[in-house]
Amino acid sequence: MDLTDPQTLARAVAEGDRRALARAITLVESAREDHRPRAEALLTALPRREALRLGLSGTPGAGKSTLIEALGMHLIGQGHRVAVLAVDPSSQRSGGSILGDKTRMELLSREDAAFIRPSPAGGQLGGVARRTREAMMLCEAAGYGVVIVETVGVGQSETTVADMTDVFALVLAPHGGDDLQGVKRGVMEAADLILVNKADRDPTAATHTQADYAAALRLMRRRAQDPEGFPQVLKVSALTGEGLGEAWVAVEALWRWRRETGHLERTRAAQRLRWFEEEFVAQALARLGHDPRRGALRAEVEAGRLSPPEAARRALEA
Amino acid sequence: MDLTDPQTLARAVAEGDRRALARAITLVESAREDHRPRAEALLTALPRREALRLGLSGTPGAGKSTLIEALGMHLIGQGHRVAVLAVDPSSQRSGGSILGDKTRMELLSREDAAFIRPSPAGGQLGGVARRTREAMMLCEAAGYGVVIVETVGVGQSETTVADMTDVFALVLAPHGGDDLQGVKRGVMEAADLILVNKADRDPTAATHTQADYAAALRLMRRRAQDPEGFPQVLKVSALTGEGLGEAWVAVEALWRWRRETGHLERTRAAQRLRWFEEEFVAQALARLGHDPRRGALRAEVEAGRLSPPEAARRALEA
Repeated sequence: MDLTDPQTLARAVAEGDRRALARAITLVESAREDHRPRAEALLTALPRREALRLGLSGTPGAGKSTLIEALGMHLIGQGHRVAVLAVDPSSQRSGGSILGDKTRMELLSREDAAFIRPSPAGGQLGGVARRTREAMMLCEAAGYGVVIVETVGVGQSETTVADMTDVFALVLAPHGGDDLQGVKRGVMEAADLILVNKADRDPTAATHTQADYAAALRLMRRRAQDPEGFPQVLKVSALTGEGLGEAWVAVEALWRWRRETGHLERTRAAQRLRWFEEEFVAQALARLGHDPRRGALRAEVEAGRLSPPEAARRALEA
Repeated sequence: MDLTDPQTLARAVAEGDRRALARAITLVESAREDHRPRAEALLTALPRREALRLGLSGTPGAGKSTLIEALGMHLIGQGHRVAVLAVDPSSQRSGGSILGDKTRMELLSREDAAFIRPSPAGGQLGGVARRTREAMMLCEAAGYGVVIVETVGVGQSETTVADMTDVFALVLAPHGGDDLQGVKRGVMEAADLILVNKADRDPTAATHTQADYAAALRLMRRRAQDPEGFPQVLKVSALTGEGLGEAWVAVEALWRWRRETGHLERTRAAQRLRWFEEEFVAQALARLGHDPRRGALRAEVEAGRLSPPEAARRALEA
């Protein structure tokens, strides 16, 4: 089987071949411009399959990875196939990655019905979003019915993930009763569900945290895409498994409700349009990079002999 | 005098006509696409004059506006002509603007040697950066030897301002001795100078804050563009005027040192290149907006019949 051929690779991915899926993701993640035409031919050849796209973020120490592993195991037990992708815009600097240390999801990574993909090192935020969307398309085509996109809370990464998933869940640890610290307002506004993890450790603190966030959310907003107007706040424990089943029921119920009421399709259509504009910009910049006159224009701009707006116009009028 | 003609307007700006400068800034700020060709003709016709570009940001309550007013009066007393521009990406939402309330710089706004321009309402962050750069070019051409760009600390606005100025100063209030809270790491890394304001109120707290930040900066970094490897931390009081003269001496000495060592020209060249790429993207998107096939492509993407990367390629292959 010649996996360097995009058509063959697409077929192997669609048949659920894990090795082919891993290779396909490596191809779309490649920073080499000469890999891009093959990556695009691959994406075009994929079958379209629908998955539930779940975004997941959380404050440091909230136990996000442990929760994803426990949720993943629960889903597999119910017969789902689960893919986990990571968005980590900081990995370009640290060289590390969220899921790089696979032992963090040791149980889940051993399961045939699970596919875990660490965040690639290198690249910018825009690049990370593009590659994650494409990796998600590949996982869906490979038959994973649930795709979880995890993110660390760096820069705009939560918004990036919320903009490519159907349901965006925020994982928090119970707080000491003092305040709602550590969660940016924009992230709170993007949340479709809040999970207060580690409910086993201090049930009273968890219940207070749940009540505080529920109250804060009611003050903040009312959204048409939430059946009640506000997202639910649930207590869970990744350690004991408490509340995990209920959390999944809530995710799936929200997803089905949105699908039936048309919210899901509207959200996905808006996400596709933003992706289109981002791709347009990325491809325009790539073409600028190949433009033979670019070097001369850059030199003129650098020396201050040509104004940047004027140089941009000349570059576009190629 | 026909100020609708870009050449005439450019001449009037260069002669120091304040009304012409105000009109010229309104033209480059205009969101109307049909104003753009005149705006660009105007910018091309301007004489190039060199100014010291000072960026200024600060935590809420640090007394930034009062400090700018006091510094501006000090500079005017020394014979400088000073322009103050504001970058406020949040003004699109609030409809307000940092300097909208001119009484906040009542003394300075009455001076002939000062030009104060509130932040325009509307537009996105990318748009704000573009318009501020162009307004800065206009102020320089009008003979303002010092251009101060003020920003509120919203989103990426500090980084945006640091990327268009020669010296980026951060204004802080003395803290209670507890921590360095409220300043994002990226902002700290961009700072060329830190001013601890309100030194009159609690001199001991101000001295502690000064020492704490100086220590933190020494741990954080060493930069070739700082003569000592680290930015200076100075105490000032906008109210009593204490330390303002020294602060300006520090800004000017840093600027001259960077100019003589070539750092200034390298920084400006890099800023121009980033501006070029941002302009390229902005203009490419504007052209996409005018493309007659764009509606059809968007409809295909929205319906999910065409993948966003494929649609972007077709839009570019016009």
